[in-house]
Amino acid sequence: MRLAFLGPVGTYGEQAAQRLAALEGLDAVAFIPQQGIRAVIRALADGDCDLAVVPVENSVEGGVTSCLDALWEHPDLAVARALVLPIRHALVGSGPLDAISEVLSHPQALAQCSLWLGEHLPQALQLPTSSTAEAARLVRGSRFRGAIASLEAAAEHGLEVLAHPINDVPGNCTRFLLLRRGERSHRGPHASLAFSLHANQPGALLESLGCFARQGLNMSRIESRPSKREMGEYIFFVDLELPEGAAPLDGAITDLTPLCEHLALFGAYPLTNLAAEETAD
Amino acid sequence: MRLAFLGPVGTYGEQAAQRLAALEGLDAVAFIPQQGIRAVIRALADGDCDLAVVPVENSVEGGVTSCLDALWEHPDLAVARALVLPIRHALVGSGPLDAISEVLSHPQALAQCSLWLGEHLPQALQLPTSSTAEAARLVRGSRFRGAIASLEAAAEHGLEVLAHPINDVPGNCTRFLLLRRGERSHRGPHASLAFSLHANQPGALLESLGCFARQGLNMSRIESRPSKREMGEYIFFVDLELPEGAAPLDGAITDLTPLCEHLALFGAYPLTNLAAEETAD
Repeated sequence: MRLAFLGPVGTYGEQAAQRLAALEGLDAVAFIPQQGIRAVIRALADGDCDLAVVPVENSVEGGVTSCLDALWEHPDLAVARALVLPIRHALVGSGPLDAISEVLSHPQALAQCSLWLGEHLPQALQLPTSSTAEAARLVRGSRFRGAIASLEAAAEHGLEVLAHPINDVPGNCTRFLLLRRGERSHRGPHASLAFSLHANQPGALLESLGCFARQGLNMSRIESRPSKREMGEYIFFVDLELPEGAAPLDGAITDLTPLCEHLALFGAYPLTNLAAEETAD
Repeated sequence: MRLAFLGPVGTYGEQAAQRLAALEGLDAVAFIPQQGIRAVIRALADGDCDLAVVPVENSVEGGVTSCLDALWEHPDLAVARALVLPIRHALVGSGPLDAISEVLSHPQALAQCSLWLGEHLPQALQLPTSSTAEAARLVRGSRFRGAIASLEAAAEHGLEVLAHPINDVPGNCTRFLLLRRGERSHRGPHASLAFSLHANQPGALLESLGCFARQGLNMSRIESRPSKREMGEYIFFVDLELPEGAAPLDGAITDLTPLCEHLALFGAYPLTNLAAEETAD
């Protein structure tokens, strides 16, 4: 089993990949890091890998749209499982906190810790890197350089944790999807789908969403994205919660189909929320 | 007049700021670059600046959620005007294209040109920078380093344009908002608002969207975001197109209010679409 994930090794993407593989009950999995979400998708679509793990939504940054676009463009790929992973950034390094004059990390992680950095290291130079794990690798052996990365990355590179957690928003978490090739399931507690409408007019979206409400399906997320990558015509990406037992998804899809120019069910699947477990502790 | 924008100088954020100031008929504007969207918003909210320009949606990357969150958290800020700016990346430098062995840019710009880079510069090392303008500054005087940046940044730093456009998606564009302090207008061809619902249950969102449809308002965009930054409870961000003449926005808001835990109209405003003008040429 080869599983493609958004690398490099030591990022939150690898953590998610390992958790999702364990939840699927897989062992002897080779985790293959990829550069960029498109490369992860391509590795799966081209058959180089059997599974892929990609981020699809961050609670601070919002939707990771290249993942949604890829599912729209690759009808041969299906969502097998979802995982919500809490994101807890740490400042890691080898020197004392007050010796740090340069902080390295991915620009998004620097942005997610900007209030903390402004308060505790206002003079430190912020240097962008291609990932949080790469930042951890680069600060090894330096007393004046720190990295914003995960606790796992600190352990991997033998770095001390100088401060944790340092995210400005405590509830920061990311939802990841496990993708595989093959048929898209219609049965499961959660489902994701997307559709474009024949008419972009008042009430057209409303009519389409009525198809879910009539079947008692709760819409847990909706996002509109420009169709064909231009502003104006839209694709709607919807996540649904399916009540146990009944199978009303097919009914909703039957009602929805005549309203749509194109409709794609990405799959029905189980979701594990590690952020909720953490809150419950 | 002081206008805060997402810096540094030479980025698409500065282009948008200059265009929006011109559309407002302002002259003698001091353009004040800021690090990060939160800093732009803070400069306006704290009274350091009179106006702010922030990106709110990219056609490839999706919603820029920190801008939406800031409008939700700062009821004293209003949307005055919107602009859709086409994003056309160039490879800029001083050497011939085939001498380039390192390509510098913001990770998002590198990602948006990944297919082009894979085809034309597959061996080149990709180095992240904090902005496209910073990348252009860093490659000055080097024959083997190129930057992905705008034509304007190339001109500013005296660099040659080695290839243009190089984005993988030709229709790439970003919507920017001009924000000011003060009352939020109810009259204009476009409007943006957000709301959270009393009940997160089947049909609740549907009922709320019915308020717009009954008044003949077209919803041009919808995005749900986790409320209080946790997954589960949602805030819905909606953009509306308002028909000329009538003033049905107040009616829709009156209908919507009893369904909402919190409702915020960010403003009604004019929108200029430079991407559409370009397509029409």
